[in-house]
Formats: sequence, structure tokens, C-alpha cells
Amino acid sequence: MDTGVQDHRRRRKPRPGSSGRVTDYTKLVNPFEPIRVFTDDQVEAIHRNALRILQEIGMRVLHQDGRARLKAAGASVDEGSQIVRFDTGLVEHALATAPRTIELIGRSAARNVSLGGRNVAFLSVAGAPHATDIDRGKRPGTLADLEDFIRLTQSFDILHMLAAVMEPQDVPVHLRHYATMRAALTLSDKVPWVFCRGAGQVQDSFAMVRIARGLSEDEFVRSPHCYTVINTNSPLQLDVPMTQGIIDFAEAGQMLIATPFCLAGAMAPITIAGALSLQHAEALAAITLYQVVRPGAPVMYGSFASNVDMRSGSPAFGTPEHVKTSFGAGQLARRLGIPWRSSAGTASNMPDVQADYETQMSAWGAVMSGCNILLHGAGWLEGGLTASFEKLITDLELLQSFAEMFRQVGCDEQDLAFDAIRDVGPGGHFFATSHTMERYQTAFYEPLVSDWSNFGRWTETGAKSATERANRIWKQKLGDFEAPALDIALRDQLDDFIARRSREGGAPIDA
Amino acid sequence: MDTGVQDHRRRRKPRPGSSGRVTDYTKLVNPFEPIRVFTDDQVEAIHRNALRILQEIGMRVLHQDGRARLKAAGASVDEGSQIVRFDTGLVEHALATAPRTIELIGRSAARNVSLGGRNVAFLSVAGAPHATDIDRGKRPGTLADLEDFIRLTQSFDILHMLAAVMEPQDVPVHLRHYATMRAALTLSDKVPWVFCRGAGQVQDSFAMVRIARGLSEDEFVRSPHCYTVINTNSPLQLDVPMTQGIIDFAEAGQMLIATPFCLAGAMAPITIAGALSLQHAEALAAITLYQVVRPGAPVMYGSFASNVDMRSGSPAFGTPEHVKTSFGAGQLARRLGIPWRSSAGTASNMPDVQADYETQMSAWGAVMSGCNILLHGAGWLEGGLTASFEKLITDLELLQSFAEMFRQVGCDEQDLAFDAIRDVGPGGHFFATSHTMERYQTAFYEPLVSDWSNFGRWTETGAKSATERANRIWKQKLGDFEAPALDIALRDQLDDFIARRSREGGAPIDA
Repeated sequence: MDTGVQDHRRRRKPRPGSSGRVTDYTKLVNPFEPIRVFTDDQVEAIHRNALRILQEIGMRVLHQDGRARLKAAGASVDEGSQIVRFDTGLVEHALATAPRTIELIGRSAARNVSLGGRNVAFLSVAGAPHATDIDRGKRPGTLADLEDFIRLTQSFDILHMLAAVMEPQDVPVHLRHYATMRAALTLSDKVPWVFCRGAGQVQDSFAMVRIARGLSEDEFVRSPHCYTVINTNSPLQLDVPMTQGIIDFAEAGQMLIATPFCLAGAMAPITIAGALSLQHAEALAAITLYQVVRPGAPVMYGSFASNVDMRSGSPAFGTPEHVKTSFGAGQLARRLGIPWRSSAGTASNMPDVQADYETQMSAWGAVMSGCNILLHGAGWLEGGLTASFEKLITDLELLQSFAEMFRQVGCDEQDLAFDAIRDVGPGGHFFATSHTMERYQTAFYEPLVSDWSNFGRWTETGAKSATERANRIWKQKLGDFEAPALDIALRDQLDDFIARRSREGGAPIDA
Repeated sequence: MDTGVQDHRRRRKPRPGSSGRVTDYTKLVNPFEPIRVFTDDQVEAIHRNALRILQEIGMRVLHQDGRARLKAAGASVDEGSQIVRFDTGLVEHALATAPRTIELIGRSAARNVSLGGRNVAFLSVAGAPHATDIDRGKRPGTLADLEDFIRLTQSFDILHMLAAVMEPQDVPVHLRHYATMRAALTLSDKVPWVFCRGAGQVQDSFAMVRIARGLSEDEFVRSPHCYTVINTNSPLQLDVPMTQGIIDFAEAGQMLIATPFCLAGAMAPITIAGALSLQHAEALAAITLYQVVRPGAPVMYGSFASNVDMRSGSPAFGTPEHVKTSFGAGQLARRLGIPWRSSAGTASNMPDVQADYETQMSAWGAVMSGCNILLHGAGWLEGGLTASFEKLITDLELLQSFAEMFRQVGCDEQDLAFDAIRDVGPGGHFFATSHTMERYQTAFYEPLVSDWSNFGRWTETGAKSATERANRIWKQKLGDFEAPALDIALRDQLDDFIARRSREGGAPIDA
């Protein structure tokens, strides 16, 4: 227990009332051999199937410049149908220039995120239109809600990057990115997410990142300081804002996660191998365009394939098929050799036991498939339509448990404890032994939410559920929140930029 | 999806309102490579450490005949201290005679359970003194509660054996085994659990199994028709009823699971390697005695090591340490080469999100460590003090999901779906393709509890939580229950036996 490749117990002050154990979850390495569902030959068959899909069927690319850039790189383009067919050599060339590891740059070195190999980063829910908590119920998300979610993301080092948690629907769309980026850049020092809703919003967002980080355009473009997720429109389409986003992010050298959203039985084949073939083809198409625009820029393979309920067509998450698809996606990503993202999810409409077991099923699937980013790992409800304050907290317990599982198990002579076992002897106990006393403050994970007291004590203290305790925890964290220091001059510049651009009319998403 | 080593879709009739998908979870094979936390050298170091513990420190065996049998087999016994020291050769000889696979015999061949290799069986909570449900709350368990739990166990083929779910406290202890065995043998045809509470109760229970199964003594002793779990009294003690149980089960050739209950930081060392060393030593001692009594009889290695809260001493389950201990226990069991049992658990006092995440953490730990029996996999609450009707049902969703995950993923040309992807083309959908239509009734797991409807429809149907839906499900299952046929003559013999033995005074546990 006390040795290991990672040491989470440095540099932090203990939390009040705790044993004194300090944790540091900022850099996680997953030591476990990924679980496999396919043989190597089957992985190769899916990869070749995807290449054949791109070569013979092709992608419809709705964005003219996107088609033109792919054509210039050697793709075959039919302007009438907007179909782009990708020569296998073109895809392979793009894969050869895609980096094997990515270092995202936060406001401080402690917020940098290493992606690739066995590194893993955990992220919250992203993009939910609604917020919910057990006091106020479900409602359209507001800027105040988003700011609270950003404060909570900032408060827990188990969340490694800032996801676009929730849509503030009280801010008009052409001005929304100013509000969301301002919140992200002033309330957090973690790497922010930028939405691809037209070049205008993306360029505004890049400008805001540069201002808040004090970066020149040259400095900005040299390393990734923000990231986005683009979803293909399965099957086999890339729409205008997504294609524009690929181009904008590549040109600026910022990190793109290319994630088809393949629901087996609906927008993807009903078979896992078929759904993964489609996902793989679409991800390769997006990665190829990105590398065509800027060879060597940081791009991730994205997987978010689950299945639908075949009786209703409703999306489902955390199903056995979802888990197996994650395992297979990890094998395909490792075939490519580039960093990759997986996802957790649930279709439950409230933060109940279903929400938990579906989230945990999918999170285990993602972690045990060796993903480098687990997106939607905390707070996601209702198929992604709602971000839940309480579920954010209870899911963090799971993520922190994974981080603790990653710590190497010691097995030296002291760990084997022969002397302690001899000294205690048959019928004794280990509570007061020096072997225990030397380790008791740090040996075990201290839970965030779990209540291990007995029934009597738990009843006396109000018989609270984990969800009720989580409600208290997020409120306390918000009460304790202090925004990370940001140079007042940079903040003023940011506000000036936002004021000027707002006066100029903002950035409509079709711009 | 449609090929595989296992086919769960045979012989059963579809459930009403379902798609027509039929499942058969009676025989499960876990295809996944077990997760490891130790190197091979470290596994060897723990194994050698355990052998050294047995050789140099020894076990206190409170049972005189147990000590005598071990002494006759070559162990060194100090009658004053009751300490038995095990020569390594004695332990290795016992391990050499322990079978690598075990076939438990149910009332019909479909109820037989294969243990060893990659086979896995799921079992409910066992031994809880209390029962709870959301209508009636927590109360001391009654025979009526136990009968309902047995009916539910019988109703789901994902539960492979009958665990001693709950203690009927309305039946006096000296007569309790008549009531529990009668319920087990008349309401279910699955392999029953027998408690080791003195030779009188054990011999009575064996007699009841023989009567209900129509077996002669010779037939009974030839194969295992029932099983027990014995817990050592950590550290390093074997009490009288447990030792007697080992001897009784070995002599009768019935299956014994030797499970130390090692809580790191309390009755076991605070380090994982130390706790596992103690567990391993104690399990080896019990296995050795069992094999000394009857070489070749069926015995399992048992693991149930977790940790305590070092601030309160309360046991905790589903912790990161619990999971890593399971992974390590699997490595140790495979080092021995004999079938082994792991466990799920939670310390939560109600069937809330904590109960779910702790159970699922520990269940994933057990399944991914390659256990052959997952005990306490459904319905366990409050550190094992309470059996929950609703949690039994929601946990079955997890167990069924594991079973579905075990199904091989197809990857032939039809699974790869190139033609379907070409026929649908960019921007289409797969709902109505022949590729989908041929598979939609059977492709995906249909959940037991999960509600995937959208928020509006879910609200219209009462906004029920998973736990509330589980409440409806167990009541419906009890309403639909039909006991498996049992020859009326056998049942009469059983009742006559119980009446006679009760008149004779039953079997006090100190007998």
C-alpha cells in the first residue's frame, strides 16, 4: 500500500475532520491491462472494414472548403452528392502524422493534462440543456447554474479538464460563448472546452483563451490550450459547423476529439462490429481532415457508441452492449496508436439507483478499455439532457475510487506483515499494532459521500440517503469556493473584449 | 452479436410485453482475462508468506478432533495453546488432492452448477438477520420473509444457487434448520446452503437433502448436493462449530467454501499484501483439514477481504482497497488452481445510490478477478445485516448485465455490416434495414428494472425511481410464483422427518 508508481498524498492540506490523509488526483495512470472483446485479427477486420467504407461509400461533407481541402489532399470528391471518398493511403498518411501523446496546457503546470499511453483524465457531463437538483428540480440551465458547475469542477482535482457542462439558456445564442468562456476562464484554471458553433464563435473563444492566459497568437498556436468535441452526423455525414470546427481547431493547433455518436440499431448498424466499423470510419474521416489541415496537430479518437431500445427507439446507456463496444473501441484506438476518449452515461430521469448502475457500468467499461479521457463521467442524467448537482457529487466517489484503484499495491516485506501477524497471534487484533499505527492515517481511501456508520447512528443523524448527503456537499463546496487568482489586467482585457464584441453584434452560429 | 460460445436465447418462452427475446443465464462462462495487481513473483511471495505463517505461527484450532486429525496427518500440535503448525509439505499435499473443478448437483440437470476454470455462478446475500423493503422497513427476518426470498431466488435463473439469504428469527435456533431447509427444498430446486451450527444440525440438514432429492447415503456422499461457507475467526483461529463443519462436510463429500473474513486494519493487517497473506494462510489451513479428512472432496478457496474505516472501526465494502484485494485474491486462487469464491458488499443502510455504487464496485472487482462464485451479489445491505427485497431486484440487473457482457461479440462478414452501411448510405438510418429487422428482437439486453423512456413519458407514468419499480417487480414475481414440482411422497417423508426430529428436541447448536 505504501509504495507505488503514484503518490496521491503530497502537497495538499488535510480536509477538516478527516484523518489527515491528503490526496492528489491531478495525474492518473491506469495500470490495468485493457479488457478485450476482439482478437487481433478481428480488430484488423474492423479497421479494414472502416477503410473500405471510406474508400467505397465515402462521407457526405456538407462544408465546401472541407471538401476542397480533402480533394487537394487526394480524396475523390463528387460535388453533386457532396460525397468524399478517402483513399486508404490518405487516411494512413494522416494517422502517421497524428501525435501519439498530447500535453494540454492549463493556466498553471498543475493543470496540464497528459493524454496518451496509460494516462487517464476524468471529465464531467458536457452540453446538457437542463440542470437539476433535489431542491429545485429540473429546469432549463442558466448561467448561474453553469457557473456553479464550473466552481464544482474547479473544486475537485479528480476532474481534470473543464467540460461544457450545461447550456445557459438565459443567454442568447449569439452571445452565449462570451458568457460561458468568461465563466470558464475566470472561475477555473483548468483546460476549457470550446463549442464549434461557427467560425465566429470559435475565433472569439480562441481570442478569449489567449487574453485570459496572456498568450500571443504564436504562443497559442504552438500548444493546445483548449479543446472541443465534434460529433459526426451518423451515418457518414459531416455538417457545416462541425467541419468548420475541425478546420478551425487544426489551424489553431488546438485539440479536437472526433467522436461519432453511433447508436446501434438506429443511426448505426445493430451489430457491435458494424456499429464500431461505422464509428471507426467516421472518426478516421474527421481525423484525416484535421491532419490534412495541420499535420501533427493534436487530435483524439472518440468513442460514444451505445444502443437503442428496439421497442421504442430510445437511446440506452450503460447497457452490456455499451460496455462491450467500449472494450472494442479501446482495441481500435490502440490499433491507431493515438489518444482516445470514451464516455459514461445513463438514460435515467432522476439520480436514482438506475442512474448509478448505468453510469458505473459504462464508466467501468471505459476505464477498463484503457481510455485516456472519460467524458460525461460525473453529473450526466437523462441521456445527457440534464446535468445533476447531486449526481455530479456521487459520481465523483466512483471516479476517486478508480484513482485509488490505480495506486500500485505494495508487496515488500513490510507490506507482507509477517512480523505483525506473528506479534498479534491467533485471536488478537491489529488495531493498535505499530504496523497499523504507522499507516492508519493514509492506508485507505476516505469517501466523499459514503456513510459507513451503523444503522442506529445513521438513523440518529437523520437517515440521509447518499443523494441527500451529496446535496449538502455541493452546497458546502460552493460556499467554500474561491476562484483561482487571475491577473486583474487580463480580466479587464477579457471584459473589454466581450463588451466590444457584444456591441458588434456577437457571433451568430451560422456565421 | 449473433454468434458466440454461449447462447442465452434457447428453450425459454418470452416474457409478456417483451420483444420475444428469450434468455438463459443458467450456465455462464466469463471470457475476460482476469485483472492483476501483483506480478507473478509477488503472488509467489504472498503464497510463501502464508505457508510461513502456517509453519511458524500456526492456527489455534479450538476443536479437539480437528487438532487430532491434523496431528495424525503430520501437523505439529501444542495441546496447551491449541496451536497447530502446518508443515508446508502437508499443505501442498492437501492442495494436490483438492479437485480443479466441481460439479454441484441440483434437483434437475439444469440446476447443476459447474465451478472452476472460467465458470461463474451468482448468488444472493446470505445470512442477514434482518429483512427490509420500502413498504414495511427494516425488521428482524421471519420465516415468511425467507420463503419469499427463496421464491425470488428460484424465479431468476441469474441466481445459480440458493444462498442462506436471511435468518428467520421467529423460529427457535434448535429448530430453525428444519424450517430453512424445508423452505429451500420445497420452494426451490437449486443447490441449497447448509449452515454449520453443530454436527446435529448439519447431519439433520444432510438427511433432509437426501430425503428431498430421493438419495441413498451412498449416492449422497458420491457428489455434492449442498454446500456451506465456513469463516475462520481471523486472525488465525478456527472455532468449534466451523471445524466440526469442515469435518462433517468433508466426510459427507459436500462442498465447503473456506472463507476467512479479513478486514484490513482490524482483524487483519492494514496492508493489502498482509491481509491477503493472512486470508491465504487461514484458507489453506481450512482446505488442508478438509482434504486430510477426505482427500479429493470438493472445497473452494474463499475471499472476503475488505477494510475498515480507520476512524470508527466500521467495516467498509466496495472500497478501492476491497476491489484490489479481490484482484489479488483471484491471482492467489489461480496459483492454487482450485475453484474460488469472491463477494460483493455495501455498508449502506438503505437501498440508495451508495448501496448501488459500493455493490457494483465490489461486484466488478469480483467478476474481473475471475471468481467462480460471486456471493452476496444481490440484496445485501448494511454490511450484511439486512437483506433488501428491492435491492435484490436492482442488483439482478447488474448480474444479468454481466451475463450479457460474457456473450462473445460476433465479427463475421454479416456482423461487420458493410452492405447494410452501403445500402443505408450517408444521412440515412438503420431502423428498417433487413440487417436490423433480422436481429432487432434478440440483439440487445432487455432490462429488468431500467426505464429508458423520456422525461415526459416517465413523469406521466408516475416518475417512479428504480427502487420503486423494483418493489413492483418482486411483488409481481411472488404473485406469479409456482414452486417446482416435488414428489408428494418425498415431501411427506421430509415433513415426517422434521416432525420426528422436532419431537426429539431438535438440534441445539452446541450439540
